[in-house]
Amino acid sequence: MQISGRNKLQATVKEVVKGEVMAKVVMDYKGNEIVAAITMDSINELGLKPGDSVAALIKATDVMVIK
Amino acid sequence: MQISGRNKLQATVKEVVKGEVMAKVVMDYKGNEIVAAITMDSINELGLKPGDSVAALIKATDVMVIK
Amino acid sequence: MQISGRNKLQATVKEVVKGEVMAKVVMDYKGNEIVAAITMDSINELGLKPGDSVAALIKATDVMVIK
Amino acid sequence: MQISGRNKLQATVKEVVKGEVMAKVVMDYKGNEIVAAITMDSINELGLKPGDSVAALIKATDVMVIK
Amino acid sequence: MQISGRNKLQATVKEVVKGEVMAKVVMDYKGNEIVAAITMDSINELGLKPGDSVAALIKATDVMVIK
Amino acid sequence: MQISGRNKLQATVKEVVKGEVMAKVVMDYKGNEIVAAITMDSINELGLKPGDSVAALIKATDVMVIK
Repeated sequence: MQISGRNKLQATVKEVVKGEVMAKVVMDYKGNEIVAAITMDSINELGLKPGDSVAALIKATDVMVIK
Repeated sequence: MQISGRNKLQATVKEVVKGEVMAKVVMDYKGNEIVAAITMDSINELGLKPGDSVAALIKATDVMVIK
Repeated sequence: MQISGRNKLQATVKEVVKGEVMAKVVMDYKGNEIVAAITMDSINELGLKPGDSVAALIKATDVMVIK
Repeated sequence: MQISGRNKLQATVKEVVKGEVMAKVVMDYKGNEIVAAITMDSINELGLKPGDSVAALIKATDVMVIK
Repeated sequence: MQISGRNKLQATVKEVVKGEVMAKVVMDYKGNEIVAAITMDSINELGLKPGDSVAALIKATDVMVIK
Repeated sequence: MQISGRNKLQATVKEVVKGEVMAKVVMDYKGNEIVAAITMDSINELGLKPGDSVAALIKATDVMVIK
């Protein structure tokens, strides 16, 4: 299975903050934090918790550049 | 100046591929490739070229998680 | 492998239109057309062509509602 | 009135889960679930509730492809 | 017909730049430029051209804040 | 510092509604409301409050056109 989304960063979940509809997932990627805002449904379906090995997936059209 | 976008990844531009409207910017982020699809206008305004020190900016709501 | 993105629509590729940086993928999803604009890199890496069985992946935060 | 967003799927609202800022709308499209995460303001302004006939609107640049 | 997308900015099309798959639409919104990158299909279907009265539609989750 | 995101609208914060994970920021841009849904982390880090002079930042690929 391959995904067209260009950016996949292997990371480790550090923290999951749960809201009613949305949740925040803080990941560690080589010492840098990556933050995702995803639905609570995803948190539950994937069983996301600190320590999990995951990948952050980001579509190329969602990446901006600062110079 | 601060930006609400949660993810700012310090990277180096490796390649810029120009189209008519859109361009692809390939960056190196700690040994991982990050790809951005941005407008040609941005390429020109920022003068983006290989070797540039940049940051990839990604809003938390645009990050998915794969487990 | 599970993906947090909530919407995965089983579809069949009908048409691939190639640009320099971006490409258009037209899919059939239960008689409805679904159109994706993805990078040419993705087209090449996945070898996308008409007739392919695929899934359209869409994050819940990218879905609007019209009433 | 026409909208540039390429993907419009005629669906029926099955469930609305309300948070403080965001809400989840689960829709049925020909037996498949489509999930949207939109603001509570939109829920209130459109008066979204189970049984409503709606369309899910998705911009082509927000659609990925899995093969 | 109502759309959940929170931001609808009444604007006038100033310029349309056509690519193979994507197009750039430059709009004037109260003296400020708004730029949209949409598919060529949308350009053709809506018949977008300079002088058109349009609205720029932006989902709240796609808006960042700089301070 | 320059950002590739094409749309930057100078605005004033009118209201901040806080949730657990996400927050809503309502801004005034020349008499028009602009709404952003961003993380609570951003609200806290930027110290966003009514009266603040800010800019709304929107990537061109996230702008649709209604005609």
